[in-house]
Amino acid sequence: MTILKHPDFTTPELANAPDARFVAAPADGVLPEDFFSTTNLPTYVRINGKWLMPREPRMDSALVLGADGLWVKEGRKLKKGDMVAVGSAEDGGEGIYVHSGSFFGEEEEGEFKFMTSEVSREKPIDYAQMAHILIEERDRGGYPIWVTGPALVHSRARADMVWFIENRFVSALLAGNAVAVHDIEAAIFGTTLGMTRTGEATTGGHGLHMRAINKVRAAGSIAKAVEKGVIKDGIMYACVKNNIPFVLTGSIRDDGPLPDVITDSVAAQDAMKKHTTRATMAVLIATALHAIATGNMLPAFVSEPDGTMRELATICVDSSEFVVSKLKDRGTHQAFGVVTNAQDFMHILRLYAERELTERQALKSPTQTSKTPA
Amino acid sequence: MTILKHPDFTTPELANAPDARFVAAPADGVLPEDFFSTTNLPTYVRINGKWLMPREPRMDSALVLGADGLWVKEGRKLKKGDMVAVGSAEDGGEGIYVHSGSFFGEEEEGEFKFMTSEVSREKPIDYAQMAHILIEERDRGGYPIWVTGPALVHSRARADMVWFIENRFVSALLAGNAVAVHDIEAAIFGTTLGMTRTGEATTGGHGLHMRAINKVRAAGSIAKAVEKGVIKDGIMYACVKNNIPFVLTGSIRDDGPLPDVITDSVAAQDAMKKHTTRATMAVLIATALHAIATGNMLPAFVSEPDGTMRELATICVDSSEFVVSKLKDRGTHQAFGVVTNAQDFMHILRLYAERELTERQALKSPTQTSKTPA
Amino acid sequence: MTILKHPDFTTPELANAPDARFVAAPADGVLPEDFFSTTNLPTYVRINGKWLMPREPRMDSALVLGADGLWVKEGRKLKKGDMVAVGSAEDGGEGIYVHSGSFFGEEEEGEFKFMTSEVSREKPIDYAQMAHILIEERDRGGYPIWVTGPALVHSRARADMVWFIENRFVSALLAGNAVAVHDIEAAIFGTTLGMTRTGEATTGGHGLHMRAINKVRAAGSIAKAVEKGVIKDGIMYACVKNNIPFVLTGSIRDDGPLPDVITDSVAAQDAMKKHTTRATMAVLIATALHAIATGNMLPAFVSEPDGTMRELATICVDSSEFVVSKLKDRGTHQAFGVVTNAQDFMHILRLYAERELTERQALKSPTQTSKTPA
Amino acid sequence: MTILKHPDFTTPELANAPDARFVAAPADGVLPEDFFSTTNLPTYVRINGKWLMPREPRMDSALVLGADGLWVKEGRKLKKGDMVAVGSAEDGGEGIYVHSGSFFGEEEEGEFKFMTSEVSREKPIDYAQMAHILIEERDRGGYPIWVTGPALVHSRARADMVWFIENRFVSALLAGNAVAVHDIEAAIFGTTLGMTRTGEATTGGHGLHMRAINKVRAAGSIAKAVEKGVIKDGIMYACVKNNIPFVLTGSIRDDGPLPDVITDSVAAQDAMKKHTTRATMAVLIATALHAIATGNMLPAFVSEPDGTMRELATICVDSSEFVVSKLKDRGTHQAFGVVTNAQDFMHILRLYAERELTERQALKSPTQTSKTPA
Repeated sequence: MTILKHPDFTTPELANAPDARFVAAPADGVLPEDFFSTTNLPTYVRINGKWLMPREPRMDSALVLGADGLWVKEGRKLKKGDMVAVGSAEDGGEGIYVHSGSFFGEEEEGEFKFMTSEVSREKPIDYAQMAHILIEERDRGGYPIWVTGPALVHSRARADMVWFIENRFVSALLAGNAVAVHDIEAAIFGTTLGMTRTGEATTGGHGLHMRAINKVRAAGSIAKAVEKGVIKDGIMYACVKNNIPFVLTGSIRDDGPLPDVITDSVAAQDAMKKHTTRATMAVLIATALHAIATGNMLPAFVSEPDGTMRELATICVDSSEFVVSKLKDRGTHQAFGVVTNAQDFMHILRLYAERELTERQALKSPTQTSKTPA
Repeated sequence: MTILKHPDFTTPELANAPDARFVAAPADGVLPEDFFSTTNLPTYVRINGKWLMPREPRMDSALVLGADGLWVKEGRKLKKGDMVAVGSAEDGGEGIYVHSGSFFGEEEEGEFKFMTSEVSREKPIDYAQMAHILIEERDRGGYPIWVTGPALVHSRARADMVWFIENRFVSALLAGNAVAVHDIEAAIFGTTLGMTRTGEATTGGHGLHMRAINKVRAAGSIAKAVEKGVIKDGIMYACVKNNIPFVLTGSIRDDGPLPDVITDSVAAQDAMKKHTTRATMAVLIATALHAIATGNMLPAFVSEPDGTMRELATICVDSSEFVVSKLKDRGTHQAFGVVTNAQDFMHILRLYAERELTERQALKSPTQTSKTPA
Repeated sequence: MTILKHPDFTTPELANAPDARFVAAPADGVLPEDFFSTTNLPTYVRINGKWLMPREPRMDSALVLGADGLWVKEGRKLKKGDMVAVGSAEDGGEGIYVHSGSFFGEEEEGEFKFMTSEVSREKPIDYAQMAHILIEERDRGGYPIWVTGPALVHSRARADMVWFIENRFVSALLAGNAVAVHDIEAAIFGTTLGMTRTGEATTGGHGLHMRAINKVRAAGSIAKAVEKGVIKDGIMYACVKNNIPFVLTGSIRDDGPLPDVITDSVAAQDAMKKHTTRATMAVLIATALHAIATGNMLPAFVSEPDGTMRELATICVDSSEFVVSKLKDRGTHQAFGVVTNAQDFMHILRLYAERELTERQALKSPTQTSKTPA
Repeated sequence: MTILKHPDFTTPELANAPDARFVAAPADGVLPEDFFSTTNLPTYVRINGKWLMPREPRMDSALVLGADGLWVKEGRKLKKGDMVAVGSAEDGGEGIYVHSGSFFGEEEEGEFKFMTSEVSREKPIDYAQMAHILIEERDRGGYPIWVTGPALVHSRARADMVWFIENRFVSALLAGNAVAVHDIEAAIFGTTLGMTRTGEATTGGHGLHMRAINKVRAAGSIAKAVEKGVIKDGIMYACVKNNIPFVLTGSIRDDGPLPDVITDSVAAQDAMKKHTTRATMAVLIATALHAIATGNMLPAFVSEPDGTMRELATICVDSSEFVVSKLKDRGTHQAFGVVTNAQDFMHILRLYAERELTERQALKSPTQTSKTPA
């Protein structure tokens, strides 16, 4: 867990920086021409001589000052007249300081080394550490969000995902229609996209996911389908039974969709944001679209109530280096890439989590024999 | 161009098949339990002893019989009481015949061969043939639709795409917010995602696509931004100036979005479908999401006014075999995969198209000297 | 375990087939012009009215009849005058029958299905079955060969590989210089290519593999370096200590090489062939070069002493679909592809093997309480 | 063309550095324990108070001082008693200075940027620049080496490769048996691995590459097969006819092999090194094995006779980011990655080269009309 430092505001550059300048939005959903475009890094805005951090930090948005304080807001949410920070300097020279040094700071590059690429299938994966972070987050009352693609369900990591849900490692599940459809197809018919548990395509199987969708549409919602006994196991079932919130966002690729899907992509982003602003950890598995969408909304750091900051642990799992590189290329520098098969990832991560839990249990409950009186 | 045959309806199996059975939809957007789930292959439904083909064929939908004939419709579009075909047999035994033989028919597999995998970067790419098909489609008044991802714009194939638009090879462009955003960022700032023409990341570049979006939002729409001179070149400019319809569909990954984006994924599918039902050819470039979404809606064949059928030429270009395999795994069997870089694909396809056009021109206009009398 | 059938030699085509024709090799290492080029499938050659199967079957070689029987031999091994089968018909028409039906036979392809691609990261991996096959092979006295690339060592699956060696699941290890070098670098310095256990590049680390090589060269061989205590753990150590034969074959990419490496590629193929001709199972992990080289030499089937045949179980593990598709494209049709990270594969396969062994143990040793007399 | 600077030897650190220390090799092919392991960067060794650069620089080797000067030599080539530089400091502190600053020097990383990954299919490819560098190298009498995999031949980029050979852009061709085999199969049978020009697998095609090999073995060598008219076109034909040296190195995957193949990997490395030590540019296409092997041997820079240095332009073309990242991870930092299909790369590179040549020609030969006197 990397602890991040606040900048030193006593340096002449920052001590003598001017206040940030704010300009009114010219129309609803339109920013002033030279608005400051945010990053996901710790950002400080000088207002009346004080450095403030905005609430709900994320990248590709604007700094908006209102009666209720300083916020990061998407341009489309602005009303005409909202006061928006302007400028492009990130070094405090225009009253805004982006503390990139906390992340990229001190690296020196002047050496001949092997194996310096950031993401590679040739690098070791530290499952023990990832399991440890996850358990720590759960036990400190953190808010780990999981963002998954359908490969998780195709490849029968369903049982492992259910285990993580039931053991309270999942504070919210963000996914698309397909994850829920295939999970429910598996619950009802035992197949995913008509493929059996052992990977065989079946005759007539191409219609089974459509039949699954239709059954949920008939029931009215996933929760009602669980209630009525249409869905009896799986990921969505576990979410409903354990009161874990899920956000199913729509895409043009969706069949159906299921009644729970938020088909409007702007409304869907807002629904996701309710969770990204609370997130203290993110696990992104086998989905380029949802991983990058979530990465766009996540700050790179967590602010604790006591004012300390730490890196927001972000794990991105994919079969190729490409998705993780793409995520980093779009600003989610803190992502830790794991290049492997989603099924295998889930299985081993669970194994290591179970091991650590068993060890912790062993430490907590020493054998009682020592109490035996003489 | 593969010509497809209609089935022989005089065989005993088909001649003696029963009429298809139709059952009323139990509620709005809900299909009868045992509805027939469609494929993208030529499908024949027996009604009053006659075999009819439904209109607007696509996969993952239902056969609906109304006063205006037999249609393929998505379940979500049904009204309570709509009459829906039921059954699962695809061999005519329940009055519905899926003519898969026209595609998969006669192949014999019993031989030892090398290089039989369907999609591979090791296979040759026949640009001359692809260019030829494209020119044929244009000249016969076909309706080629292009579905593209942002790599096309990142990698500066913009000029080539503009050439295809200006030369009327594009009947409709289906894409996402990002394609338009990066194209417009390039038009206004000369960068894409802040990366220069030569691939360098620039200081402050991370905000340029947000500034581009803001300018179009301020103008009101892409067409208005073209009109006002904000956008002066590129793909979107060429579409506006040449009256080529474009559909920009929203996703949760979108910044902005641009005012033209259809953010509701169901409405977006409907907008796409207006073009997929007219399509006589499809070119899918560097986009998994949009390619598979389009593949889901496209029939595998084109029905001509005279009743003949031919394969719907579908070209899918991607940097890896994965997307094409995924497309095929989701039923778009007719897709022809090209494993290459989008920029290079565009450049060579244009080159071959130009060559064929030059040759055709040469044949049309022989030199006049031969007319000289002796 | 797929049991394969011999063909029916009583059909008129085979019963009336002519004897195969043999022609003398025109020079050392040169085949007669129209030599029969072998496959890896069960092959039968008619000689004096009897159908014989050749010894040491493999693809891309010739059928050679000598005083000691009928053999499959690489062209380069022939001596002038060796009698070589000629012809190209594989249906018995020229006295040679390739029983491809035993593998590809009866498949019907005329259906619309999803998920029919042969190799895909979206398909489930049946570790229980793979572990079961491996245990069965060991316990029946089979000869499983393992062919591995250096990713196995980089990614710290070393301990798992050692476990498989120590538990006698590995009859022979075929690899390149790099596997041994990195394994020994890890044994001596705790790094691989200068990368630490947690994936960090180290200062001066780029020379460590060279220092490891130098130490073994100084010792004279890997076995001597083990003996002298230079190498104290790891894969090569386990092979030496457990008397498991290993073949290290050279390539142009080798540093050093280690003294044990067979630098001549033809001699190296001969050394590998000693094991491929005995193999009853093959596990190919994270190596394109060695996997395809081994695939070229392996028959697709195992002939038991009693004359029965079964498929030679071949597992190919790689991070992408590409290597497995390439292997199949080069004739190794029987390969079962697993698309995952080598480290994760090893870990889970071991886990499942341990589980099955524990269960078997439990079944063998029932609790003794039942013996209690009444 | 990046010009590299020599270090400033007047700084106190370098001015006061000690002479490098040399220790005798303890046995043939064995280095002293603490030998200095070389990189591919400009390296300076202090001897008698003077800084010398060694001859034939490459990585993973030793600095050897003999009567004929200071050389970089592979450990296996040493004789007992050869004097080898020892130490591990690369900053001159032990008399050896690796000038990494010339490559990695001044980069600052403290900014939030998009698109900073080094290799990505999303980055533009500057064919005009690559073609320009290639023409410059040819015209200044440089020595561009080409290292290719068989995809080049499979995918019918043969004609383009022949064009580069015939136009003297290829000073040496380094490849494996497969490149030559498939090229010759194409020359004789019109197929590659039995696949036709349009990508279809053919009946009986699996044996054609074996028949091609056999014909060359019968002829005695590729040159003789060309002479006898067995080979009438293609890459190998062009090399023979234009006296371009080629090195075919063996691997365990080879069928045959062809008589020209150097089967011993150590001898093969020596044959390659004759060209890598002369190389002023390298083009690596569609081959992981040969690209990385060559990268291991190449210095990162070219030393001109006048003492100036420049970066050794190295282009690495592959269908995925992986090979280029791997190449960089193994120290070939100067490689410029192009992620595309080999066929398309060759086609466009040739197109751009032809364009520049046409333009140059136009500039050289102005129309003569201007000479007309008044």
